[in-house]
Amino acid sequence: MRIDVLSLFPEMFQGVFGSSILRLAQDKGLVSLNVTDFRTYSTNKHNRVDDYPYGGGAGMVLTPQPIFDAVSDVKQADINPRVVLLCPQGEPYTQQKAEEFSKEEQLIFICGHYEGYDERIRTHLVTDEISLGDYVLTGGELGAMVIVDSVTRLLPGVLGNAESAITDSFSTGMLEHPQYTRPASFRGLDVPEVLLSGHHQRIEEWRTQQSLKRTFERRPELLNEEKITPNQQKLIDEWKKEM
Amino acid sequence: MRIDVLSLFPEMFQGVFGSSILRLAQDKGLVSLNVTDFRTYSTNKHNRVDDYPYGGGAGMVLTPQPIFDAVSDVKQADINPRVVLLCPQGEPYTQQKAEEFSKEEQLIFICGHYEGYDERIRTHLVTDEISLGDYVLTGGELGAMVIVDSVTRLLPGVLGNAESAITDSFSTGMLEHPQYTRPASFRGLDVPEVLLSGHHQRIEEWRTQQSLKRTFERRPELLNEEKITPNQQKLIDEWKKEM
Repeated sequence: MRIDVLSLFPEMFQGVFGSSILRLAQDKGLVSLNVTDFRTYSTNKHNRVDDYPYGGGAGMVLTPQPIFDAVSDVKQADINPRVVLLCPQGEPYTQQKAEEFSKEEQLIFICGHYEGYDERIRTHLVTDEISLGDYVLTGGELGAMVIVDSVTRLLPGVLGNAESAITDSFSTGMLEHPQYTRPASFRGLDVPEVLLSGHHQRIEEWRTQQSLKRTFERRPELLNEEKITPNQQKLIDEWKKEM
Repeated sequence: MRIDVLSLFPEMFQGVFGSSILRLAQDKGLVSLNVTDFRTYSTNKHNRVDDYPYGGGAGMVLTPQPIFDAVSDVKQADINPRVVLLCPQGEPYTQQKAEEFSKEEQLIFICGHYEGYDERIRTHLVTDEISLGDYVLTGGELGAMVIVDSVTRLLPGVLGNAESAITDSFSTGMLEHPQYTRPASFRGLDVPEVLLSGHHQRIEEWRTQQSLKRTFERRPELLNEEKITPNQQKLIDEWKKEM
């Protein structure tokens, strides 16, 4: 997979794209990560990339020309890449979208910074508008990094068994159960007896119940009614009474 | 404000913490950003920070000792800092939480990477468990960067007027209206007439209507019924019929 990021702050990406999984995936040739300063595409004599909004108002707006030309230049021949705009007006990002993106041959990310986007960028260039969540960030760069990380780790061959084995809360519909490791007693805080018991079945039951309880307490909207057994439903009813 | 990040990948933070608003805020002395490799606190002779989970299962779990000791060391005297764990089981991050964090004197972030957390870290050290959204990331580092950016930009004196004027979708309950800048015609794509008209009232009406329409189409759950006027409700009813 080839990934291109268009940003006015290319230096922001070095640490994240050069470490851990993203570095390994590039070293293995599984993904190519390219960051382009779209200011270099500006045909304006002062290399400007933004201007005042038509109709007045505060803030600046990114002009279409540098971004249209940069996308056209990084786009691979014979490929219809997804062109992703990071913005607060976008669709909230989800694991499902990460899986969808991971099947593409090329992704292009457009990162504004402070500025708004000229609407023609949205309507005639971009295929997906994405928001990380309902909070305000200074630019789209962190959003692009988050999506690149979540997508790259899904590419075949990127993760080893140990890493990929981590329970994926958003596939199972339940939050992960509590985990404990050594020491069995740390500054007076003990590991639950059952985990030291060696009874695999009891451990499994305890973990499932803890997962259920944590999901019920923290994210009840994730619980999938169809997957809840009658015994689990009894537990949920008891917890509801206790509240 | 003082912010401390505990991570096994401190080099990931250089680009983001050294650019744009975060660099400016540090230069102005408004925030102090410190990244600590908590492996340096391990008392294990091989500097290990993780171990196998009690009760079996795949994946590794971060042991409590290095993290407890690192938090104790970076914590400022006479301050009760918020200690934030980035994890998929956490509370989904919101702008409201960013505002809450921005009033603290110190924030400490704990970033796992691949590994799970020993439950005693959650129950006896951490004040807040936060998730960026419902997607899987390789570590907590990007989550910490997102929160640090969203919090720092709220600190008094960090943003100038131009940047802070950007409409905050998550305060007004409406997504921002389309923006346009020069040229008025770009490769056959024209700016809407009304924005070139100079009629301030018509421009304002058009923008409010476009904000409403965009929010209705993309994020209807954000619309605040109490703030919708009878005329706006009529428009919404028409759009519903068209669907």
